[in-house]
Amino acid sequence: MAGADIDVFVREVRFNGDGLVAVVAVDDKRGDVLMMAWMNEEAVRRTLQSGDVHYWSRSRGTLWRKGETSGQTQTLKSMAIDCDGDTLLVRVEQKGVACHTGRRTCFYREWREGKLVITHEVEVAPDTLYGKK
Amino acid sequence: MAGADIDVFVREVRFNGDGLVAVVAVDDKRGDVLMMAWMNEEAVRRTLQSGDVHYWSRSRGTLWRKGETSGQTQTLKSMAIDCDGDTLLVRVEQKGVACHTGRRTCFYREWREGKLVITHEVEVAPDTLYGKK
Repeated sequence: MAGADIDVFVREVRFNGDGLVAVVAVDDKRGDVLMMAWMNEEAVRRTLQSGDVHYWSRSRGTLWRKGETSGQTQTLKSMAIDCDGDTLLVRVEQKGVACHTGRRTCFYREWREGKLVITHEVEVAPDTLYGKK
Repeated sequence: MAGADIDVFVREVRFNGDGLVAVVAVDDKRGDVLMMAWMNEEAVRRTLQSGDVHYWSRSRGTLWRKGETSGQTQTLKSMAIDCDGDTLLVRVEQKGVACHTGRRTCFYREWREGKLVITHEVEVAPDTLYGKK
């Protein structure tokens, strides 16, 4: 996608005081929410340019192409923006699992009748994802 | 739900420096993302206690029962928490529309081929929602 086009989009984004916008990632096929993360302006631009979803890691303070270490990449299918411009909704083709715990979604714990219940099991061992084995 | 049970849940939430946790609200029937907002600890507790979804309004600096002015309430169907505890995912029964613009979702603008396209039309006039008419 051309840079001038992307400028049009970026102008609609209301980055917060840290220069970040919240991003909700949804599995394009199944429609369920996989994760919530953050993008800075460069991550938004690289995602739209390349089709590979990039985020800003607040803990590491670096730009991060999803899956660059784990191989669990996200290919952008669509990007929407909310009414006040401070949250993006990306629909993605998720390769493998979205969560660093090896589950398909980060939202694998649900509150049921006074208890936190595990709703999604580990599909890939985290050690495999991060090259410790 | 009993207070002691809710304590168990609240201990899992990693509130940010402002005492807030991000919340993604999904329509329980259709499965689509309606909005992203924030809860403080009291909003989490009131939501779990009452079944009426409460948020913290960052712009107004107040606790806010969704729909208290507009009538467009959210009834909690389930609450999940992500791997690092800083985002909640609520499935809700949305009465009417979630967005203050009168659309069913706040994510009504999608990026398509270099343009922002309106994907959801206004269902209820905002003036009706907020009592100006």
